Amino acid sequence: MEYINGGVCAPKGFKASGIHCGIRKNKTKRDLALIVSDCKASAAAIYTLNLVKGAPIYVTKDNISDGTAQAMICNSGNANTCNADGVEIATKMCEITAAATGVAAKDVIVASTGVIGQPLDITPIADGMHQLVSELGYDNSTNAAEAIMTTDTAKKEFAVSFTLGGKECRMGGIAKGSGMIHPNMATMLVFITTDAAISPELLHKALYSDAQKSFNMISIDGDTSTNDMVSVMANGMAGNETITEENEDFEAFKKALAMITEKLCRAIAKDGEGATKLVECFVSGGKDWHTAKTVAKSVICSSLFKAAMFGADANWGRVLCAIGYSGADVDVTKIDVSFTSEKGTIEVCKDGAGVPFSEEKAKEILLCDEIKVNVNLNDGDSTAVARGCDLTYDYVKINGDYRT
Amino acid sequence: MEYINGGVCAPKGFKASGIHCGIRKNKTKRDLALIVSDCKASAAAIYTLNLVKGAPIYVTKDNISDGTAQAMICNSGNANTCNADGVEIATKMCEITAAATGVAAKDVIVASTGVIGQPLDITPIADGMHQLVSELGYDNSTNAAEAIMTTDTAKKEFAVSFTLGGKECRMGGIAKGSGMIHPNMATMLVFITTDAAISPELLHKALYSDAQKSFNMISIDGDTSTNDMVSVMANGMAGNETITEENEDFEAFKKALAMITEKLCRAIAKDGEGATKLVECFVSGGKDWHTAKTVAKSVICSSLFKAAMFGADANWGRVLCAIGYSGADVDVTKIDVSFTSEKGTIEVCKDGAGVPFSEEKAKEILLCDEIKVNVNLNDGDSTAVARGCDLTYDYVKINGDYRT
Repeated sequence: MEYINGGVCAPKGFKASGIHCGIRKNKTKRDLALIVSDCKASAAAIYTLNLVKGAPIYVTKDNISDGTAQAMICNSGNANTCNADGVEIATKMCEITAAATGVAAKDVIVASTGVIGQPLDITPIADGMHQLVSELGYDNSTNAAEAIMTTDTAKKEFAVSFTLGGKECRMGGIAKGSGMIHPNMATMLVFITTDAAISPELLHKALYSDAQKSFNMISIDGDTSTNDMVSVMANGMAGNETITEENEDFEAFKKALAMITEKLCRAIAKDGEGATKLVECFVSGGKDWHTAKTVAKSVICSSLFKAAMFGADANWGRVLCAIGYSGADVDVTKIDVSFTSEKGTIEVCKDGAGVPFSEEKAKEILLCDEIKVNVNLNDGDSTAVARGCDLTYDYVKINGDYRT
Repeated sequence: MEYINGGVCAPKGFKASGIHCGIRKNKTKRDLALIVSDCKASAAAIYTLNLVKGAPIYVTKDNISDGTAQAMICNSGNANTCNADGVEIATKMCEITAAATGVAAKDVIVASTGVIGQPLDITPIADGMHQLVSELGYDNSTNAAEAIMTTDTAKKEFAVSFTLGGKECRMGGIAKGSGMIHPNMATMLVFITTDAAISPELLHKALYSDAQKSFNMISIDGDTSTNDMVSVMANGMAGNETITEENEDFEAFKKALAMITEKLCRAIAKDGEGATKLVECFVSGGKDWHTAKTVAKSVICSSLFKAAMFGADANWGRVLCAIGYSGADVDVTKIDVSFTSEKGTIEVCKDGAGVPFSEEKAKEILLCDEIKVNVNLNDGDSTAVARGCDLTYDYVKINGDYRT
């Protein structure tokens, strides 16, 4: 398996495009994305657990309840959430897409991201649809990746190639997500495509299981969005024998999926609103996965720890504090903590107490833009990784007046 | 019942002092506080639920296990937490206090606040004890209130007078707390004194029950400290009949306690690290207290909502989002939201959807330094209040390099 270029267009039979249609005032910012498969695809999606859900989530759930889809339409700039006419507008987005592409309206995945509680005008979407469809291309993933961005500063698209039963398969994904990132079950907006053949049931199983260790382990700010969604379409054009049971091919498919989602997760965490660095907490020695996971996520979510990372301050007391209130059942007198970056590793805490270390060396390590905090619970064999970012002035700035 | 001056020295028979002994480098900052009662007092305390606990917590728990205490010693600048010799040092603090005051070492409440994981040197405390005791005074609460401050910008001391069985009683409290504030069970450091006579059992009951609605409903940054403690000493010098059952006097005592703790909570929340304003979430119409509480706390803890408050942005979508992921069982289509300050009230959301409102008026209201966000769940009669502050550049600045 290896990473390749092409994003969601890397797999056979997927076209994409992204344009500025006018939902956003800034004319240089694309705000409408479309992905279309040449044939019907197995489809699966997972969604936010927030009780307040964006209208597109209800429509998408309904549309892919039969396990198939063929297109994805997504706008940025408006979340179409908490609006009285939300479901009507999201349904219209599917119908307009259907009319312009020939795909059935019931085979369209629809998503929206942006401000909550402002009615979404269908006019710019309807007016832009002709251009959007005319620009569809087999090498146009990047425009779609750009069109779904909100406060993101970098597009997020990855692809891998892998082999199933001698057939070369490909999988690609794009994502948006920068703030209001603390997924629960699903996350942000992620669209994955693959030309592998797989049944809808196993596609869902692979996606759900992957999300527990990938998207559900990211946190930018502890706020679970109303519009989180990860969707995947598998159109089977690679010609492999359809995966219908949990065999070796299914394992290979899951591995390819994990390669895509890990890259997307790291990209999302590193591009957290205002973030200057990616922070990953690697927990080992947990007595079970739940314990390791709870510890990792608590550290990554701590505002105090995140502010310390911004300041390149090896304040390991905040790591122990976050472990202590996580709710995980750990023996704090066994915990070791160290920090790692490309500049090396420094041990700062052993058996729950501080060890002497060079503040200068620690600073050098923590000034890098990708930091790992390693926590060994010394209580078993389970591991977990959580990903997030530092807490900065710019996070406050970006969110202090988001609506204007 | 009315508020009076005098802090922890307002009740009869309590002396206090606060000095700079040298734990902190800044010589203008007091760092050691002492409160002494003229006679043995009923005592109760509640503590952090963080698994990582400061050493003074273990010592205090042991010392007041018999329900009595007579003095309180507290340093700032070092939390005495995650240190191999922590319990030994905390015990020495009690012994030194005992030797200098004549109070039994087992009757001393000890507390520490500051950096985690740096050994606490007993020398400055031992050397400063003579001065600390010589400055004890019946009107010296303020110096003690100042000595327990860390990143606090304002001292927090309040007192009330009330009557039990015809006898005038008084109660006073001081608190510190600005960051790492998200109490669980207990909170921060709060020291309350009263000259009312009450049994240790009922004193604990009153304190525990009050904390659920006062301290446990504050959050500055979601981080539960390792050293949280609220303690109360009741020395009985008011001469009232000792409260030993849940009668009318107990209700009056609880009311006085709530008057003190509400003031302390508002002061702590408003002085949150970097905060420019106090933000209170008043939830009504809950089907039960747990639901109302969960909703109120989720809103107050949302980083996105807090950043919006900093920007005076009436972004009610973030309020609904935080309610939606709170875990509370609510009907989102029934929720009303409005904002209130001294400049008036503005309704922004009705039945879970936006209502047209004047952005100008909203800005005027939200630019004030005390904001109420009112959430009506329209699903019952239960209410709850949570308190916090806005998220600002200065929070990040203060915590980006706390240790230097």
